[in-house]
Amino acid sequence: MIENKQWIYAERPTGRIGMEHYILNVENLDSASLKPGEVLVKAMYISVDPYMRIQQSSNNTWEKPHPLGVVQGAGMVGEVILSKSKKIKKGDFVNCYTGWQEYAMVPEGEARLLDPKIAPISTGLGILGMPARVAYFGLTDAGKIKKEDTVVVSGAAGAVGSTVVQIAKIKGCRVVGIAGSQEKMDYLVNELGVDAVINYKENRGLEEMTAALNKAAPNGIDIYYDNVGGVITDAVFNLINHKARILICGQISQYDHGLENPELGPRFLHKMLYTRATIQGILSRDYNNRMDEMIEEMGPWVKAGKLKYKETVVEGFENLPAALSGLFEGVNTGKMVVKV
Amino acid sequence: MIENKQWIYAERPTGRIGMEHYILNVENLDSASLKPGEVLVKAMYISVDPYMRIQQSSNNTWEKPHPLGVVQGAGMVGEVILSKSKKIKKGDFVNCYTGWQEYAMVPEGEARLLDPKIAPISTGLGILGMPARVAYFGLTDAGKIKKEDTVVVSGAAGAVGSTVVQIAKIKGCRVVGIAGSQEKMDYLVNELGVDAVINYKENRGLEEMTAALNKAAPNGIDIYYDNVGGVITDAVFNLINHKARILICGQISQYDHGLENPELGPRFLHKMLYTRATIQGILSRDYNNRMDEMIEEMGPWVKAGKLKYKETVVEGFENLPAALSGLFEGVNTGKMVVKV
Repeated sequence: MIENKQWIYAERPTGRIGMEHYILNVENLDSASLKPGEVLVKAMYISVDPYMRIQQSSNNTWEKPHPLGVVQGAGMVGEVILSKSKKIKKGDFVNCYTGWQEYAMVPEGEARLLDPKIAPISTGLGILGMPARVAYFGLTDAGKIKKEDTVVVSGAAGAVGSTVVQIAKIKGCRVVGIAGSQEKMDYLVNELGVDAVINYKENRGLEEMTAALNKAAPNGIDIYYDNVGGVITDAVFNLINHKARILICGQISQYDHGLENPELGPRFLHKMLYTRATIQGILSRDYNNRMDEMIEEMGPWVKAGKLKYKETVVEGFENLPAALSGLFEGVNTGKMVVKV
Repeated sequence: MIENKQWIYAERPTGRIGMEHYILNVENLDSASLKPGEVLVKAMYISVDPYMRIQQSSNNTWEKPHPLGVVQGAGMVGEVILSKSKKIKKGDFVNCYTGWQEYAMVPEGEARLLDPKIAPISTGLGILGMPARVAYFGLTDAGKIKKEDTVVVSGAAGAVGSTVVQIAKIKGCRVVGIAGSQEKMDYLVNELGVDAVINYKENRGLEEMTAALNKAAPNGIDIYYDNVGGVITDAVFNLINHKARILICGQISQYDHGLENPELGPRFLHKMLYTRATIQGILSRDYNNRMDEMIEEMGPWVKAGKLKYKETVVEGFENLPAALSGLFEGVNTGKMVVKV
């Protein structure tokens, strides 16, 4: 018998998500019950991601809201400690979607094998995982990125944003990153090679943000990769070029309260007429079946150090709810993971 | 010498456009000054269109605002009364963009020949002109319409909207029309074959409009062809399907004041994530070079009575400013033109 600690999602938040919405549970897992074709995985890193907050809202129309009374859904990477699979053996590292728990039994088809020779396996949740997938295909597929583009990225120091800015630089674009601290801005400029940065906390009003963007993107904006929404996005609509592509990957500024009681903002759709721009929602899962294609191009970039990454590692399974909450305060640079 | 009456755009509106923003001018036109390759056209019908109000705003980012002190820009159809062109002869009917004036000298390359055997020439401003072009290519090109789609159209009884609903019906879709009077709704259902109609004046709140749409589009919304914006559009975002296409052709509810001082509305971009929908601005001029393609398919529809149209004809050149103003009160059914 294995003692398996789990965080049970117990109560819907109406504002910020936190510890009070979870209950810690311990179940006994009988490893003898592993079925043929399954593997038993011991979590090493467990993910916290902004999308979780959307799923928790009963007002989302994405899918049924995350049910109460079950393990919080999440990606993890871990080690196979027992295998009844012919494809995956004991000692292999895998990425799977088994939520906030220490152990899980997973059908082999739902576990993605990781190659620790490319990069540390925690990257399976970040720079070579779900956030990277939406960064990569968002820019290349939905965004139709070309080297002449000016690319503006909100949440630029986050897991997705920091990948987006680097891919855009590799593709030859002018890249503007928006983040919320001097430390993050320094990271973006000095380590990731971003051309211009804006601290949104010092440019909170629409006019200030518009002026800052005007300076940072003197030729207007061709791609806006949006992780944040709100006033930043309002300002972007003043500066979009003909046939600009606005990619909605996240709206983290709206998740605390805005899903239940929408915030008001200026109506802007008439501006779409002037530019014939497009706005498109993008989601990592839409590109699940193209993971090999991404690893083929991005794996070598990561291995060669051309694509850099930072991880904010929170230690301890017990800190999962606090880590998730921290995302909405922007405490992370790069991908935030919890080390079990 | 010809006495040529002209409406000069003289003052920028901050709210509703009206007579007070124009000055009536009479110039003397010397027909002897017609250059080789030009034709002299006598206007028969002159156009008033909602887009004019956008151009008048100094806040539009579409292009430079319509200059003051010159003839109000507009399309017209008229008869060639003198020709120095080899392609267009005296007595021909043409469509050209020469503004609110009775006569104009036009280079042959800027005049589109009309075929009066297909339909009355006033249709060159409507069902076979600019509004039809954005209806047709908006649905077929940007909207990628397919017969399984539920298509919702705001401003459904207007020049563009009444064309959109009919094309969508011809393509086999379920079509919901939104308009502002019983008369317009009757027209949509009884004459144009629309499947369900909503009177937005009786459903002014977000909840009411959402409920009405829910009833009219029980399988959700695949294409929203938006001419109006505001609360109608807010409600639509509650009901869009996976990969829905939202086409922004107009935002007439915002033109009186919203361009200068944007109205506030609920932030909705997070909903794009749930559905991976797209929002795209569409403009008739982007399809100028595909006019033949449109006439080839739509000309026979009009001739056969398969595509119906109504025109709201205002008599008298002197009524042009009032006619334009009336668009924003929804006084028209179908295309509004002024008969000179």
